[in-house]
Amino acid sequence: MSGAPLFDRLALIGIGLIGSSLAQAARQRGLVKEIAISTRSPETLQRAEELGLGDVYELDAATAVEGADLVILCVPVGANEAVAKWIKPALKPGAILTDAGSTKGSVVDQVGPHVPDGVHFVPGHPIAGTEQSGPDAGFPTLFDERWCILTPPEGTDPAAVEKLTKFWEGCGSTVDIMDAKHHDLVLAIVSHLPHLIAYNIVGTADDLEAVTKSEVIKYSASGFRDFTRLAASDPIMWRDVCLNNKDAILEMLARFSEDLSALQRAIRWGDGEQLFDLFTRTRGIRRSIIEAGQETDAPDFGRHGKPGSANLAE
Amino acid sequence: MSGAPLFDRLALIGIGLIGSSLAQAARQRGLVKEIAISTRSPETLQRAEELGLGDVYELDAATAVEGADLVILCVPVGANEAVAKWIKPALKPGAILTDAGSTKGSVVDQVGPHVPDGVHFVPGHPIAGTEQSGPDAGFPTLFDERWCILTPPEGTDPAAVEKLTKFWEGCGSTVDIMDAKHHDLVLAIVSHLPHLIAYNIVGTADDLEAVTKSEVIKYSASGFRDFTRLAASDPIMWRDVCLNNKDAILEMLARFSEDLSALQRAIRWGDGEQLFDLFTRTRGIRRSIIEAGQETDAPDFGRHGKPGSANLAE
Repeated sequence: MSGAPLFDRLALIGIGLIGSSLAQAARQRGLVKEIAISTRSPETLQRAEELGLGDVYELDAATAVEGADLVILCVPVGANEAVAKWIKPALKPGAILTDAGSTKGSVVDQVGPHVPDGVHFVPGHPIAGTEQSGPDAGFPTLFDERWCILTPPEGTDPAAVEKLTKFWEGCGSTVDIMDAKHHDLVLAIVSHLPHLIAYNIVGTADDLEAVTKSEVIKYSASGFRDFTRLAASDPIMWRDVCLNNKDAILEMLARFSEDLSALQRAIRWGDGEQLFDLFTRTRGIRRSIIEAGQETDAPDFGRHGKPGSANLAE
Repeated sequence: MSGAPLFDRLALIGIGLIGSSLAQAARQRGLVKEIAISTRSPETLQRAEELGLGDVYELDAATAVEGADLVILCVPVGANEAVAKWIKPALKPGAILTDAGSTKGSVVDQVGPHVPDGVHFVPGHPIAGTEQSGPDAGFPTLFDERWCILTPPEGTDPAAVEKLTKFWEGCGSTVDIMDAKHHDLVLAIVSHLPHLIAYNIVGTADDLEAVTKSEVIKYSASGFRDFTRLAASDPIMWRDVCLNNKDAILEMLARFSEDLSALQRAIRWGDGEQLFDLFTRTRGIRRSIIEAGQETDAPDFGRHGKPGSANLAE
């Protein structure tokens, strides 16, 4: 990124994995002149300061957004409404207010009514993350080659959407624009259901009597461990996602369960042909994901040292 | 591995990911003097020869096992019985017959009756693999720091178990001995259920009308893609696993579905506390798996370039 900064003052409310990565990306790439950071925990705020993530550190979110022309809410989605009410009187006219939450309909419903006239409200969702959380988990390349979805409500000023798009492009992302409701349906299948399934299977394994926990851990390389990454994600964030995208998640869970019952029946009745058909058609999707640059093709995620392939030390 | 080879002639029946990796590990580490390879597909056999995986290549499995003092069946578990009948007349007295299949009760039932007197039958299962298949997918370090489970039936000669243990240790693995029935229960939760869940969710996503396949692919980094690795595994292998470990798999599927219904109910009724509890207790298991050396702790499996952490080029 070269040229003049896009914004004078960026205010980040919440400084976990996403907020910290945004601060580092915006700083390194010269996207903003000044960064104000606010979070409700004094310990986390102090850690952000130790890491040098911003220029100004405020426990009071309203003070942090004063004079900011870009405000990004990086809190669990369940906290968005309270934050919106809190900062409402301090938002600068002409500022862009956005967020980084995993649900978008709820943000429109809960934040929208508290946005003052003259402030541009453009909900957003960077499709990027790791299983780690907190300011120490952030890194400036998190958004590189990732998608960021914006869901501006009807009537939003196109110039504000354009400027926010440039910001995310500056962070390394490609921006897609869609309706909040469609976003929530898409994310329910690509993100929310996978996380719930992962949490659920780890919970099921944890509850067994006949197989010990140490056996589950020892032999986890045979499949189970692939689920544990998602199941190690931030519990507050995921509780809030479940509570704030209920309808779409329940719809996807119902479809998944129906399909699982059919699979269960095929196993019970020894229907090898049906099993083979399912196990075959699922192979192509992975190839497409690798071709789209959203996955590595190193076998087993490159965990093993295979000569000639990328090698990740274990 | 130093010292004299453990076996004079190793016969590998089947030369996919496991057979190919075994050939390379045994050769590089001097565990055997000679390797005979057999597979029913002439194309695969030719490819094995091009890769230089063995010394002798035979379409006839019976010819391959002649004179072998170690015979390892590396075929999908559904093919074991036919292979056992085929090679029965050619097995050398005193030879060790083992396999690398993911189910063990079925192998005891289907292969056991065809083992001639004087041949030592010690079923085995290396807990190692990638989502790739075929002779080209093999590599000599696949078994390093992985477990291998042996399930010798009662009355098996301890010297044969000991010798096979040394062979697997030579390949880099640590050997565990357990009952075949217990093996099948453990693997049902750590491997078979995860694969089925992965196949199922990829199938569910593939069937949606309201979300396009290209959307699933674009946004897969938000969780979905973690499942696609398992769902890209060999379909014949996994069909056979389902057909040959039916009872244990149905038991684990039933538990998983029960737990999923409870989770679904918590979402429907907005029970944030129950959700938070589940999402919290699942975090510890991943830490234990990393500590046990069965997983990398690089965030997002090291897919992202985080300064200071292992970096896997995407």
